[in-house]
Amino acid sequence: MEVKVLKGILDANDRIAAENRRLLDASRTFSLNVMASPGAGKTSLILSTIERLRERLGVGVIEGDISSTVDADAVAAKGIPVVQINTGGSCHLDANMIATALSGLPLDDIRLLMVENVGNLVCPAEFGIGEDRKVLVSSVPEGDDKPYKYPLMFTEVDAVLINKIDLLPYVKFDMRAFTVAVRSMNARASIIPLSCTTGQGLEDWTGWVLQEMAGPRS
Amino acid sequence: MEVKVLKGILDANDRIAAENRRLLDASRTFSLNVMASPGAGKTSLILSTIERLRERLGVGVIEGDISSTVDADAVAAKGIPVVQINTGGSCHLDANMIATALSGLPLDDIRLLMVENVGNLVCPAEFGIGEDRKVLVSSVPEGDDKPYKYPLMFTEVDAVLINKIDLLPYVKFDMRAFTVAVRSMNARASIIPLSCTTGQGLEDWTGWVLQEMAGPRS
Repeated sequence: MEVKVLKGILDANDRIAAENRRLLDASRTFSLNVMASPGAGKTSLILSTIERLRERLGVGVIEGDISSTVDADAVAAKGIPVVQINTGGSCHLDANMIATALSGLPLDDIRLLMVENVGNLVCPAEFGIGEDRKVLVSSVPEGDDKPYKYPLMFTEVDAVLINKIDLLPYVKFDMRAFTVAVRSMNARASIIPLSCTTGQGLEDWTGWVLQEMAGPRS
Repeated sequence: MEVKVLKGILDANDRIAAENRRLLDASRTFSLNVMASPGAGKTSLILSTIERLRERLGVGVIEGDISSTVDADAVAAKGIPVVQINTGGSCHLDANMIATALSGLPLDDIRLLMVENVGNLVCPAEFGIGEDRKVLVSSVPEGDDKPYKYPLMFTEVDAVLINKIDLLPYVKFDMRAFTVAVRSMNARASIIPLSCTTGQGLEDWTGWVLQEMAGPRS
């Protein structure tokens, strides 16, 4: 019974996600669903990406949080169109929330839309929102064993960023063990080490985004 | 309708949680529900606590994960009774899972039971498991704005540990801002800075545990 309810919710979500995707395709807006643990650096990544790409193309952001507008305020301060979603307790964004948010954005001016999901490695993996690519921001202080504990998330994503590599000298994190763990469940995801604090690796990241935007829609 | 289903689930959970609590009280077992983001240091805290308290009292552990037995193996290697729960996708432990796990533990020999919840700052806050105290392991690299983003979790807990203080020199984290944020939603929780890597602050933590164990049951 509980399973049936969940399947009904996921089916309804998929239908609305497909509508979101049609809307985004119509305005030629490429979208990223950015997921991570709390504090792994989603907002820092989004702010760094804005800095590096805003001169080349129109950028927009949807900020998802259970509560507060801390992150949306930081994006708005850069003069970038942003909509805040407060889920009011829900542990993930769903397609319906995104549909509402899209109606508040100037999509014709936005080539790259970054959606920051709720900080959580579990529930967001289950709910597509109509995105072109799913991106996971992992971070060095979280440890190299995370893929084994959150397998659906690591299986679903198109790119795994390893953020905070500037902290590698100070914590136990085996880059090779982490890569082996990711590869054991995801053969195709790009793995990109970087630091939003020092800027190291950010060229690789923006290069990946531009390449995916130029390629065929999946 | 969706809300009604959720309320039914929570009511059923509360009933089973109360049964767990009766069972634990009968064996004079004090229990901690240890919650955190992925990689904040729940397992490290549990292993450090075992080291420091095992000579004084019987310790037992329940390990909750979506998948894998990585953490339970680490506890078992210390010769401590441990049961692994794999939630198979569910984003939190519930009282029913704990009821099953309790039946596999020698409760009469266990004075302190530590339950490691799934790494997630959202869903675990909603589901009591019959614990005596709820403990949140926050960590310095996650940033000092987390209370505003996960208010239910920070409101519900009896202690907020600030782990990885050895990383304070290398990341932006304002201890005072974090404390102000916690206090804005939780007047009573103990706030304990520590590092499982260096051992700093662990005496304060075990002191808190022993004091809570000696006090009146809540």
